[in-house]
Parts: sequence; C-alpha cells; structure tokens
Amino acid sequence: MFRTRVHNLLISSDGYAAGNYVTLDKPIGDAGALFRSFDGRVIHGIQGIDDPVTVDRAMFSMWGQGIGAEIMGRRKFGPQSGEWPDDGWEGWWGEAPPFLTPVFILTHYPRESIEFANGTSFHFVDTTPVEALRLAKEAAGGLDVRIGGGPTTVSEFLQDDLIDFLHIVTVPVVLGSGVQIGEHLAALENHFIVESVSTSSGLTHQLWNRKT
Amino acid sequence: MFRTRVHNLLISSDGYAAGNYVTLDKPIGDAGALFRSFDGRVIHGIQGIDDPVTVDRAMFSMWGQGIGAEIMGRRKFGPQSGEWPDDGWEGWWGEAPPFLTPVFILTHYPRESIEFANGTSFHFVDTTPVEALRLAKEAAGGLDVRIGGGPTTVSEFLQDDLIDFLHIVTVPVVLGSGVQIGEHLAALENHFIVESVSTSSGLTHQLWNRKT
Repeated sequence: MFRTRVHNLLISSDGYAAGNYVTLDKPIGDAGALFRSFDGRVIHGIQGIDDPVTVDRAMFSMWGQGIGAEIMGRRKFGPQSGEWPDDGWEGWWGEAPPFLTPVFILTHYPRESIEFANGTSFHFVDTTPVEALRLAKEAAGGLDVRIGGGPTTVSEFLQDDLIDFLHIVTVPVVLGSGVQIGEHLAALENHFIVESVSTSSGLTHQLWNRKT
Repeated sequence: MFRTRVHNLLISSDGYAAGNYVTLDKPIGDAGALFRSFDGRVIHGIQGIDDPVTVDRAMFSMWGQGIGAEIMGRRKFGPQSGEWPDDGWEGWWGEAPPFLTPVFILTHYPRESIEFANGTSFHFVDTTPVEALRLAKEAAGGLDVRIGGGPTTVSEFLQDDLIDFLHIVTVPVVLGSGVQIGEHLAALENHFIVESVSTSSGLTHQLWNRKT
C-alpha cells in the first residue's frame, strides 16, 4: 500500500516544531535545542553508527525505509525568499544530500532542477500539495513519499488530509516561541490511531496512523 | 563499524526462546504463542505492510538494516538431523527466502550450496563460531552480520563473546518448557549497556549493546 509519511517531526514541550529566524548560519533558526537529541546518522539504517543502538535511534531509522521521493517546503531548502539570488545555492547539504531520491521543493519561484551523483535530485515546483504529491508519487516508483517538512508544509498537507503516517517526537525542551503545526487542525487525533512510547532519554515517540 | 547483530529474539515470560519438538509441520515447535505478536512482514522495512506502523513493528524493522550475511544453526534451516536425507529440502521458505544475502548454516554434515534468484544463498559449514563469523564477514561486503538463531546458536556466539548487539523481545506468554539461552551466560548483562521499552501490546523490547 502506498503511504505518504512524515518522520522525526520534533516538537518541544511547549508545542513548537521549528524555530523562528532561519538564517544562513542557523538552518533551524533558534530551535537548536530541539535537534540536540536527534541522531541523523541512522536515517538510512542503524549500521550508520558506532554508538549504541538506542530505542530513539531505532525509531529515527524509519526515515529512509521504502521511500522513493520527498516533498519539502522552500524554507527547508534554504533561507532565501522571493526571487532566487544568483548565488549558486544548492541547499544546506553540500555535494551529497542525504535524500538519495528525487525531492520536490514547493516554491512560487521555479528554477532548474539540480542533480547529484548519489541519486538525490531537487525539482522546484509552484503547485498545490495535491499536485506535488501526484508528481512525487509518480517519481517514487511504487515506494512511499515522505513529506519532509518544515512544519508549515506538514501542516498544509495535514489540512488537505494527505498524510497517512506521522512519527512525532516530543522533546523535553522549552523554546518559548517558534512554528506550530496545529492552528488549523483541531481534533486531528480523531482521524488517526495513535500509539506512544517514552524512552530513557526523555523523548516520547508518537506514531500516528491514519484511520482507513 | 562492523557489528555482529541478533534481532527479534523472542523470549517468553518464563524464559524460553523457542519450543521443543520441531517437526516438518511445526517449524518453531510448540512455541507458536511466542511468535503470535511478531510481524515478519516489516523485516525489510515498514513499507511492507498495509496495517498501522506500531512501535513493535518499527523495532522489528531493524532486522534487515545494513545486513550483508547471516549465520544460522541447522535447526533453523530444517527439522532433520544426522545425514541429509535425499528429499530436496531447501529450507522452510520456498522459492524466495527472506534473507536476500548469503546465509551460512552450521552443520556437521556439509552439503552443496543452494542459490536463489532473490539474492539469498545457503552455504553449509562444519566449523566453529569464530570461523563461521570470519566467512560471513568476508561475504558481507562491509555490512553487518546477523546471527539468525535459533537460540542455541545465539547462546554459543554469546559464550564466545562474538555478539555486539542483541534485540531481545520479551513476550507475555507462558510456554512451560522449551529452549533457554542463559545456561552458560550468568552475569552477561555486565558486558552490555541495556535499554528497555515497553509497548501497548505488552511486549518489552530490550536493546543490548556490548560495551567497547
């Protein structure tokens, strides 16, 4: 069965899923505390680390399983807004972005696609969530599509009822301000079956599976 | 870092990791209750199922991550003992065994290797755990080696201090009799860092990481 999935969506104890003030120096704005307990080295499997395999890392490792394409918002790709400056910007991730699949970037300012040797490619599309999902599904070759964030993009897809699975991670930190996902989503839980588990690190992993 | 890993080692509340009396009709002997809560469809990733992604399934899905070869005991491969009968036996799994890698089967009765179209191959070796691990590591092409069981085989590798990681799953069932793993392993926990988490199904997942 095809699924649209969200993974490792970190949310602070006071409900913020990202910081404000993203700049070139701070890809996640002032939300660094949120990401301190996240280990991105396991997103393609627990074999990626020398450190102990913890429950947190096991759960984070679902990110890449059976994913054939990602959709992300422009703010995840870079800090710019409006027309793209002529600065050679190709994302935060250098020569080997970790996605390894086609990635569709929602923007009102389309530009040429970028391809990397490791299988990652960036495609810029000015379209609706439904249409972006159609494109991504086509590119995914029978695998699942990840909605990669940021939180505003996840929220838009949830509003259109386009998410089948969410892995939310609540992190015991207080940010004081930032970006939330719930504003237009009151009673979202009624549409999902939810299971939670807490780990010794203080994280709580919530698995939201859409009712069928 | 190379790891020797054990996954989804199910143990009953009374400490049994397998049943007795394995026959052609009962691959796991009289331990069926132990496997009722195990979902093998996710061993190569959560995309393998239509059902909700639970914490249990997420944890089970580590099985195939970054594994390049498996070692198993003869009793996992089949119910026969002694010389192999001329019965065309190629394991329990039909034309597409789920391993997708070379598998080394420990037996005092070597026979010809068997190859399957899906990448699985069975190799029969009459040797020690150390030597079997050397062969498997060579075949794994830089990936990890899984010690696939049964429990007697896992116990032998533990006795020789050859296991880096174990995922033990305690299952709330009582078997009354069966195969245990601890007999020669008193105080094994001193060699490992252990983390546990319980889920809403009643399972407890224990992650044992060998101290370095």
